[in-house]
Amino acid sequence: MLAAQPGMPTREKSMSFERSNIHAMRGYVPGEQPESASVIKLNTNENPYPAPDPVAQALASIRIEDLRRYPPPSALEFRRIAARLHGVGPHNIVPTNGGDELLRLAVTTFAGEGDTIGIATPSYSLYPVLAEIQGSRLLSIPLQDDWSLPADFAARLNRAGARLAMLVNPHAPTGRLMAAAQLAEIATRFNGVLLVDEAYVDFIDPEEQYNLVPFINTLDNLLILRTLSKGYSLAGLRFGYGIGSASLVEPLMGKTRDSYNTDLIAQKLATAALTAAPEAARSWQQVRTDRSELALALAALGLPCLPSQSNFLLAQVDPPQVAADIYLALKQAGILVRHFDQDRLRDKLRITVGTPQQNQQLIRQLRSIMAP
Amino acid sequence: MLAAQPGMPTREKSMSFERSNIHAMRGYVPGEQPESASVIKLNTNENPYPAPDPVAQALASIRIEDLRRYPPPSALEFRRIAARLHGVGPHNIVPTNGGDELLRLAVTTFAGEGDTIGIATPSYSLYPVLAEIQGSRLLSIPLQDDWSLPADFAARLNRAGARLAMLVNPHAPTGRLMAAAQLAEIATRFNGVLLVDEAYVDFIDPEEQYNLVPFINTLDNLLILRTLSKGYSLAGLRFGYGIGSASLVEPLMGKTRDSYNTDLIAQKLATAALTAAPEAARSWQQVRTDRSELALALAALGLPCLPSQSNFLLAQVDPPQVAADIYLALKQAGILVRHFDQDRLRDKLRITVGTPQQNQQLIRQLRSIMAP
Repeated sequence: MLAAQPGMPTREKSMSFERSNIHAMRGYVPGEQPESASVIKLNTNENPYPAPDPVAQALASIRIEDLRRYPPPSALEFRRIAARLHGVGPHNIVPTNGGDELLRLAVTTFAGEGDTIGIATPSYSLYPVLAEIQGSRLLSIPLQDDWSLPADFAARLNRAGARLAMLVNPHAPTGRLMAAAQLAEIATRFNGVLLVDEAYVDFIDPEEQYNLVPFINTLDNLLILRTLSKGYSLAGLRFGYGIGSASLVEPLMGKTRDSYNTDLIAQKLATAALTAAPEAARSWQQVRTDRSELALALAALGLPCLPSQSNFLLAQVDPPQVAADIYLALKQAGILVRHFDQDRLRDKLRITVGTPQQNQQLIRQLRSIMAP
Repeated sequence: MLAAQPGMPTREKSMSFERSNIHAMRGYVPGEQPESASVIKLNTNENPYPAPDPVAQALASIRIEDLRRYPPPSALEFRRIAARLHGVGPHNIVPTNGGDELLRLAVTTFAGEGDTIGIATPSYSLYPVLAEIQGSRLLSIPLQDDWSLPADFAARLNRAGARLAMLVNPHAPTGRLMAAAQLAEIATRFNGVLLVDEAYVDFIDPEEQYNLVPFINTLDNLLILRTLSKGYSLAGLRFGYGIGSASLVEPLMGKTRDSYNTDLIAQKLATAALTAAPEAARSWQQVRTDRSELALALAALGLPCLPSQSNFLLAQVDPPQVAADIYLALKQAGILVRHFDQDRLRDKLRITVGTPQQNQQLIRQLRSIMAP
């Protein structure tokens, strides 16, 4: 640091300049992202397989000269491809800098200071943080014992005057899938905007025939989040998008979004990725197969998992074993999983489905840690 | 679009779900970004020369597999390089998804709904839009006839209880440079956060010896914006950063920023760009040389410009010529410049300094348009 020079203007030591809600809050703590490539990383739900080849080709085609100009502000090419994939129009798609940006934009657009945002708990721990940043009230509705939503979820949102509710489906951190019809029913009853975070949608068994997208045609308060971080193996690229009615998407596209929120490289790679969806789908099938095997192996070790339609498993750790201890022992052995020190999750571990080799190393290590 | 299927849930036609301030506002309108490479684009202040070679090398070194994992959330490598360049510490640097994101983060962090944000007008038209999105009040303080700030600028901010003020230096759209000491003086007097948008700082004549950065050591309310869009020819990449005291940067880094706001590719290319600052500086010198020649040529045509320390010129259009007509005639000829239909700017054109060839084509075209 440069030292203050004589004669430089100074200020009396100031109070904090932050808004009081920002000053009072604690920030979101992301999962550990070690630099080392040797760590077996089963803690932040990345896809263990790389993105489809056409994405690499798109990357190779970028010239540095292309970056000199501003990117297409509305990312129309990407939105056309996404619209075609989902059977909607480009005006139903809003591209974002990762799925997290769509969550933030939804809060910015639909809930002001003092307005109520509803969530179900436990869930993605970023939701409460976004409400705190906005200075909104949070209505946390606990999931039932079987991790399902209470039947009066929409009614409770309405009684509290909630302007926005955020649900993740398949649910994190359990992997539990809620039927699209049930979500549509909630949106029908709810007076505010229902954001359904489908970050893990690509890992749902096709035989479930889950598809919430067509409901945007009749439910103008339904906003669906998609991301390329998981299914398309592009967490490092930061690209997500929202799908909703034109009236819901319009203020996100034209008003609250930073006008150049997605960069040129991300637009081109994301377009290539969605075009190569059938190729990416092979990795999803592989993850589903490995998910079943990993769940069986964990259960055999005395770590039963809830049925998961996602690319992670929530494993139950019963006494005398302690979940936090196993988490630490795995970390010391170079394997990262996720432990949440919060109600209903303290005795569990969330484990991303890795490659078969990674999963086997995890099982071997767990067997050694848990040996009597 | 999928048609609504029989039996699908529907809603009564809803009122708008947007917050009332969002519903009432109009969005920011970015400058035109034509797809065609044949357009001579002198409208959004891009650098006419490509980024330094090491940036291209960094791009070529990215492997698609690197994108599978989340990026380093705090972009520490970039922050170390930026800190070294500016003689500060990494804790004084916050990386952002373009400079625009720093503007938004400053509003989010320091000014709530109903709080006052001060700006000088005319200026970057995004500032009022960001205040509207947040639901903050805007205090617009007109620049004086010579485009300088009124002497009581800080006092007026304080009387209005402003929490945040945003100034651009060199000023846009005039290119006028304010002395660092004058900005420091304003920060000293002002009770809120002073954000100085230095988007165009790289184009200031070195002999001006302008450097506001050391003042962050004594002024804990001073936040400086930098971007790689202009000086480093990376508008398409979306990368900017803030420089400020540790106490000012901390909530931006740890609380209000999306936790993965900059992607892996952008981090690597931005790091390479700042490392190659001496190489980029050759393009800045070229732009300065061409700026002088273009200003002379415009003056000779009867379009005098204010002295500019930026990479654009604000040309005065006197009757019988009409600025809006010249803008349109240039556009029809494949040359884009910027015309602002607002007070004090209606009779002017903002022209980005292009390559010598582009500047000559502009002059030729202007001569033909303005011929009696």
